[in-house]
Amino acid sequence: MPDNIDVLVHEVGPRDGLQSIETIFPTQAKLDWIRSEATAGVPQIQVGSFVRSDLLPQMADSAEVVWESIKIPGLIVSALVPNLKGAQNAIAAGAHQLGVVMSVSEEHNKANINRTVEESLEGFRQIVDYRNEVDPERKTVISGGLATSFGCTISGAIPTRDVMKRAEQLLQRGADRLNVADTVGFANPKQVRDLFEELFRTVGKDIQVGAHFHDTRGLGLANTFAAVEAGVREFDACLGGLGGCPYAPGASGNVVTEDMVFMLEAMGMKTGIDLDALLETRELMERYLKGEPTQGTFVKAGPPLGFVPAMAARTRKNPNR
Amino acid sequence: MPDNIDVLVHEVGPRDGLQSIETIFPTQAKLDWIRSEATAGVPQIQVGSFVRSDLLPQMADSAEVVWESIKIPGLIVSALVPNLKGAQNAIAAGAHQLGVVMSVSEEHNKANINRTVEESLEGFRQIVDYRNEVDPERKTVISGGLATSFGCTISGAIPTRDVMKRAEQLLQRGADRLNVADTVGFANPKQVRDLFEELFRTVGKDIQVGAHFHDTRGLGLANTFAAVEAGVREFDACLGGLGGCPYAPGASGNVVTEDMVFMLEAMGMKTGIDLDALLETRELMERYLKGEPTQGTFVKAGPPLGFVPAMAARTRKNPNR
Repeated sequence: MPDNIDVLVHEVGPRDGLQSIETIFPTQAKLDWIRSEATAGVPQIQVGSFVRSDLLPQMADSAEVVWESIKIPGLIVSALVPNLKGAQNAIAAGAHQLGVVMSVSEEHNKANINRTVEESLEGFRQIVDYRNEVDPERKTVISGGLATSFGCTISGAIPTRDVMKRAEQLLQRGADRLNVADTVGFANPKQVRDLFEELFRTVGKDIQVGAHFHDTRGLGLANTFAAVEAGVREFDACLGGLGGCPYAPGASGNVVTEDMVFMLEAMGMKTGIDLDALLETRELMERYLKGEPTQGTFVKAGPPLGFVPAMAARTRKNPNR
Repeated sequence: MPDNIDVLVHEVGPRDGLQSIETIFPTQAKLDWIRSEATAGVPQIQVGSFVRSDLLPQMADSAEVVWESIKIPGLIVSALVPNLKGAQNAIAAGAHQLGVVMSVSEEHNKANINRTVEESLEGFRQIVDYRNEVDPERKTVISGGLATSFGCTISGAIPTRDVMKRAEQLLQRGADRLNVADTVGFANPKQVRDLFEELFRTVGKDIQVGAHFHDTRGLGLANTFAAVEAGVREFDACLGGLGGCPYAPGASGNVVTEDMVFMLEAMGMKTGIDLDALLETRELMERYLKGEPTQGTFVKAGPPLGFVPAMAARTRKNPNR
């Protein structure tokens, strides 16, 4: 995490948002969005996914998008990779961080990527081995993602001990860090706080852990706050909540980036992000959409009267800082 | 609070919701709604406001609505009263609880009810004196409401010490309990937790304290969770989030009752409310609306697979209970 912020907001819209909607953004549109959001101060952006382009044509230009994004000064560029081939391509393109995701739920993993969890763990090890071979200094960070950690649409409740076991196995196989995901929007804030507290007890406080919430049942920000309470300092979010449809049962967009930034800054936590500039990025992104709805309350309500972002608040309190 | 629940959800839709929309519900429609929601298990409903009917014609039938509502077995019937006259009428109608609200913000109090805060405190004392005279056993509960406790649209930030001072003054003047309101939707979860912790330190843990949040900036449920963490066990909410318009800047509906109940039950806190029955009440209420939008995510997403409400979860754990 950059050392001038308290909490890292990881924009995943160009990946999680765009892969869930019909509009295909041209490469230039993605780069406009990414550059604009980086300028607003967002420190890390997941810019694409190295999947087969016949499965997700929206992501077919991920190598080019990574290649151009890593030229943006200071931006941490991440990409999702499903397997060794994807990892090879993402590393070749220059991605700073690879997200490698498996489901804690055996049934979900099978349905989603047609692998057993054990097979996914073996695939994870291959990716780490490859990275270590071509990148002995391990500059490319590998994040082990635990999908369905808070419940599964196929198998229902997920035992906490299963999440702990899979987290430890990912670390044993060389994960540099973890990402714990409420993939299907089942989590509640008590569950979130309890699970992250248990996770830090299990893997230690030195492991960097990100959280990924969906707002399916309106609890995305409550869950974010609960995770903050438990010590989490990295959160995935999606500008305008892109990717969820408010009119469909089971709608499931990510937490809205600008609403999350507002909440964190209002709580005195520095994100490094300028909210006005972030709303400009949102407008820019929306211009490329073809009818897909966006979400969010901050864009409608604006800041409260007298709102002081965390950075400015500290400067006032301690002008020498 | 009824002793078979862990947390009291106080439905305020027939007052806060209906006074903010254009549709005027006939008395029978209000009573249909109230009876249905009581049957769903909602333990307390704010059924009206004893204001001048030329100012709020939607509330002109409050005496009749109270009178009919107190016949519903087990339901705690509350009403808002702005002054002594309103209190006299509410007590005559048989309300179980009177909500008497003043703003912590001097400017907001002046703009809202054209009184200084000191004048409001004096008015509060008169109401308590009247209640004590006509109801020496003090069966009619008087709740002292602190509006704009988390910020004000006119004067901005509100110092915590002002909230503490006004809370103590209300208790000194005979308030049986308190209600702390984020009237304009400015609060963030850290602020909520800090303020309620400070309040319980100031007035003691034995004073019953309710919280009233608006979802203006998407933080209604996050603030509810933060208040739960601080020890609050009573929450105002509004079925379908009635009263806020999502398309207007500064939109400001209450927290959605059914989303709140879902969150609390998912966290293992018994509300006594049946979510399916609550959604039926929501449908009934919506049939009376004339185009006003409703809010909420639970109605669209439904419960997660494997969801077990708090009551059922405990029964399973301890079949002897």
